[in-house]
Amino acid sequence: MANLRNKSKSLDNTGFGSNASAEGTRLINKDGTLNLKKVGLPFLERLSLYHALLRLPRLKFLLLVFAFYTIINIFFAIVYVLVGIEHLKGTDTSTSLAYNFQQAFFFSSQTLTTVGYGHISPSGLLANIVASLESFMGIMSFALVTGLFFARFSRPKAYLAFSESIIIAPYKEAKALMLRFASKKNNNLTDAEAQLTGAFHVMEEGKEVTKYFTLAIEMSKISSLALSWTLVHVIDEQSPFWRLNEDELMRTKFEVIVGVKAFDDHYSNIVQQRTSYTTNDLVFGAKFLPAFHRSPDGSHTVLNLHQLNKMERVVF
Amino acid sequence: MANLRNKSKSLDNTGFGSNASAEGTRLINKDGTLNLKKVGLPFLERLSLYHALLRLPRLKFLLLVFAFYTIINIFFAIVYVLVGIEHLKGTDTSTSLAYNFQQAFFFSSQTLTTVGYGHISPSGLLANIVASLESFMGIMSFALVTGLFFARFSRPKAYLAFSESIIIAPYKEAKALMLRFASKKNNNLTDAEAQLTGAFHVMEEGKEVTKYFTLAIEMSKISSLALSWTLVHVIDEQSPFWRLNEDELMRTKFEVIVGVKAFDDHYSNIVQQRTSYTTNDLVFGAKFLPAFHRSPDGSHTVLNLHQLNKMERVVF
Amino acid sequence: MANLRNKSKSLDNTGFGSNASAEGTRLINKDGTLNLKKVGLPFLERLSLYHALLRLPRLKFLLLVFAFYTIINIFFAIVYVLVGIEHLKGTDTSTSLAYNFQQAFFFSSQTLTTVGYGHISPSGLLANIVASLESFMGIMSFALVTGLFFARFSRPKAYLAFSESIIIAPYKEAKALMLRFASKKNNNLTDAEAQLTGAFHVMEEGKEVTKYFTLAIEMSKISSLALSWTLVHVIDEQSPFWRLNEDELMRTKFEVIVGVKAFDDHYSNIVQQRTSYTTNDLVFGAKFLPAFHRSPDGSHTVLNLHQLNKMERVVF
Amino acid sequence: MANLRNKSKSLDNTGFGSNASAEGTRLINKDGTLNLKKVGLPFLERLSLYHALLRLPRLKFLLLVFAFYTIINIFFAIVYVLVGIEHLKGTDTSTSLAYNFQQAFFFSSQTLTTVGYGHISPSGLLANIVASLESFMGIMSFALVTGLFFARFSRPKAYLAFSESIIIAPYKEAKALMLRFASKKNNNLTDAEAQLTGAFHVMEEGKEVTKYFTLAIEMSKISSLALSWTLVHVIDEQSPFWRLNEDELMRTKFEVIVGVKAFDDHYSNIVQQRTSYTTNDLVFGAKFLPAFHRSPDGSHTVLNLHQLNKMERVVF
Repeated sequence: MANLRNKSKSLDNTGFGSNASAEGTRLINKDGTLNLKKVGLPFLERLSLYHALLRLPRLKFLLLVFAFYTIINIFFAIVYVLVGIEHLKGTDTSTSLAYNFQQAFFFSSQTLTTVGYGHISPSGLLANIVASLESFMGIMSFALVTGLFFARFSRPKAYLAFSESIIIAPYKEAKALMLRFASKKNNNLTDAEAQLTGAFHVMEEGKEVTKYFTLAIEMSKISSLALSWTLVHVIDEQSPFWRLNEDELMRTKFEVIVGVKAFDDHYSNIVQQRTSYTTNDLVFGAKFLPAFHRSPDGSHTVLNLHQLNKMERVVF
Repeated sequence: MANLRNKSKSLDNTGFGSNASAEGTRLINKDGTLNLKKVGLPFLERLSLYHALLRLPRLKFLLLVFAFYTIINIFFAIVYVLVGIEHLKGTDTSTSLAYNFQQAFFFSSQTLTTVGYGHISPSGLLANIVASLESFMGIMSFALVTGLFFARFSRPKAYLAFSESIIIAPYKEAKALMLRFASKKNNNLTDAEAQLTGAFHVMEEGKEVTKYFTLAIEMSKISSLALSWTLVHVIDEQSPFWRLNEDELMRTKFEVIVGVKAFDDHYSNIVQQRTSYTTNDLVFGAKFLPAFHRSPDGSHTVLNLHQLNKMERVVF
Repeated sequence: MANLRNKSKSLDNTGFGSNASAEGTRLINKDGTLNLKKVGLPFLERLSLYHALLRLPRLKFLLLVFAFYTIINIFFAIVYVLVGIEHLKGTDTSTSLAYNFQQAFFFSSQTLTTVGYGHISPSGLLANIVASLESFMGIMSFALVTGLFFARFSRPKAYLAFSESIIIAPYKEAKALMLRFASKKNNNLTDAEAQLTGAFHVMEEGKEVTKYFTLAIEMSKISSLALSWTLVHVIDEQSPFWRLNEDELMRTKFEVIVGVKAFDDHYSNIVQQRTSYTTNDLVFGAKFLPAFHRSPDGSHTVLNLHQLNKMERVVF
Repeated sequence: MANLRNKSKSLDNTGFGSNASAEGTRLINKDGTLNLKKVGLPFLERLSLYHALLRLPRLKFLLLVFAFYTIINIFFAIVYVLVGIEHLKGTDTSTSLAYNFQQAFFFSSQTLTTVGYGHISPSGLLANIVASLESFMGIMSFALVTGLFFARFSRPKAYLAFSESIIIAPYKEAKALMLRFASKKNNNLTDAEAQLTGAFHVMEEGKEVTKYFTLAIEMSKISSLALSWTLVHVIDEQSPFWRLNEDELMRTKFEVIVGVKAFDDHYSNIVQQRTSYTTNDLVFGAKFLPAFHRSPDGSHTVLNLHQLNKMERVVF
């Protein structure tokens, strides 16, 4: 618990409350999601299926879609068996329920995907109605699934790699809090903009409350996020970190929330990414070493993403 | 009818006229749509089919699409019967028109969805032309339908839950008008921005007119719409609510229009939502109680959407 | 040719040159497109196929797509005939080239749309390769066509209806230039913003040049484009229309370019529309009459789009 | 290596470092991409497949998709052969592995594209499972491929043509750096905005460093990018080009980076394009000649894109 010495006003407009989270836990997870649970409404009213399906890890998404495909086929296979396998012309008549189900299942999959070989085909009113509904449903549900598949693939993302540590380094006769990031993929980000918010868990009138501060960044906009970008928060009288020594800092429960926005040329859209650092990520007395250099033949610049966290110790 | 005592200038730039709606009715419905009817142009010129289909409730949309599918099949079934059922190879020749129509109907559905089993197939020039047109039309119209289906599913929406009441609470030695809302789903809204407009139906020179005022919000932007957000309009000399007591307020015909905009990370798009409160939604002398608390194990924050309207009475 | 009496500086940042168009012709057409032709690059380098296909009138677009479908089928029909109709199993062997072409044509359409009945099927290496390529090509080209079809349908558009005339009316002890518009469809436009630019063709040192002026609008932003919006350009000393009487105005070759931007809730996108008025559209001494009124039962507002141009004569 | 005489502060917010590139090489390539290589992360983590596939030249993209289609078919053909060609009903039983593979290949392509003629059809549990998986996979992967195909086709692009040279011309009793561009296609750009950044490779304390300067543009926004737009950077005391004569200029290693943003009506989106000029592109003492003129019949304006670089020599 720190006794903050700075005189700047704390913020109210972060969207987090003053008693939002308990001591030592975070508001924002490393991956930028909120460390928050919502209750009080039925699950389905609280769920945006679209968001959930976009957030799902790739493998889980594929498994889900495959499960969905299988279940629909099982459902229709049962319906065809109930209608009577003899109404699927081309199937072997069998007394084995399992074999009939199997034949109905594959006919169903041929209908759902509209591949429709036709060696099996519906005959009679009922079987035809079911098959007609299934192919209709197939097109509609594949519209959702393939749309989602592509939406996931093409979703605007910032693809930023952040330094693991947040450091306190000497800077222009004073100290500064610094962190570093770069775009790690072959995208092209322009007009990038960063924001730092500090959340401090402090004691006030015997109660633990969370106080928020905008951490001013020396240069909060750049034209092109070509190389790595080091955010520099100078620790002056306006900073909540003002006059805290290493010991005090390490005992303070703080969280630094980083938000970055930029324009991506290929998505023609704004992308954004968030992350946060806690006291555990702080390195006191270090400075970042360059993460890029000229190529040996001098023809281009090389950015080494592995070296985003490369630093050397500095004594104040 | 109130005699407004405030001295601030009324607004002209709301887009609503001074005689826009009758006494006691609203400009904006609870769901954010306009309480407005347009006439004077043919229906089709006034209709944006795209907007209409996106706004349609889910069940109605599905029924409409299904009706559309059925009607096209009926249309083509009639054409095939007119061309002659004998040109659909594989059908049973029958003298029953109903049975022929049935066979043609299912062949049509197999063509439209491109499932094309082939146990029935077109033969002869005319039947082939019709089938070729139908499969072409099928692809084109399913492009619209499946596109719409996905557009509905993925449409950027804010998913905000608002408090049912708008309250007047004590605030910093004065009074303030307050309402509260939160994102109710698993989306992630940042850079949220709110706007309050007050519409007052007042008498002026014996005529009822509507006057509009911007209701200043103490903090109209927040970085992250993580928890609930309470909009606070301080009732000072600039406010149209200035010096109105409970009785006067309750007799005033007013409407408070709320507009919220935010950036949604997953849509990578700005989302917005509107709603409005009328005199009937006002609770005089109450304050909101917190809608969120720490989880029992202290590891995260819990937001209870059911408690957005939770308040306690206050005496001024 | 007017001698403009106003003292405000003319604009250079319109993007049009000072000798952009000849006397009496316009820079912007009524539908908002530029009255401009580009040359000096090969046609294909000057053509954005996407823009062209989105701009094409609906009927022409459908005809084009249908022609495209027919031509591809003709092409593949020829290939199948060249490969040998006997390699399409299920076709009647015939010596009539026309009949063979016909059979190949319909097989092609069944392959392209992936309906694939199968009563005709490729046999032999060559026919199989061609059919395999065609179905692949079918999927790829239908991706473009159906994508375009949906893109046209869902393209963000403002759907504004403008008054036919631009009027000069008495306004607050002076005169003002006014025009009016409204959203004519069931869309919901918020945060609308308008811009007026005046282009004057004047004589300068014996040469005709075009001068541009921003025409200040009294209220250039509104929160919600719910009803009709009248843009009011007060003719004061800053206006290029300052002290021109009716005669002088009618002899002046001017063009007023209107640009409107707004946020559409359903597209979740900014939409914009432009149009322009020339001297021929000017009505001197008139004022607009309200285009909306209360519904007879007082429950909502009625906007009559037919009355956007409704005005009455005024004598100055 | 120049000794820059201007007194304005150099920029730090370009996103390029002070030792980003070697002498004589560029930061931004002519096509606007970064002259930069990223290392230090596994290839797949550095690759955004979506960006890569959108950037690929058209022919390469089509070849890639076709290769993908062929490879999947080969894979499934092998699986069908392994399962046993006799489980594909309708194939000729043959002892030739090549012939069996061929038959399996074409069955595979009919399944993948969902054309499913059905003259060959799976029989038996295993073959049916494989075919069912393949048609499922076919729909899913064609969702990606056709989505990409359309995304490439409809991707918001600015389509600007730039003058080949950057010139230094006399301008209002002084000199100015100028370059010119125009939209070369049938798109409609409004609210265009340009930015010029100068990068100078200079010696500082015996080390070559890169210094960046914002090059002020006389008019950096225009309402409509209708005709050609000439960017004018006046060389005054604030300019890094201040008092450099032709010789000095030609010996200076500089790079002028141009960024243009505009709103495209048909994409309803912001588009942007970048390019850069180096010392080699500089023409000292020249002025641009108009690239547009009136059409012979006076009815519209003609913009000749071939004449964007048309200039005449000027002696200072």
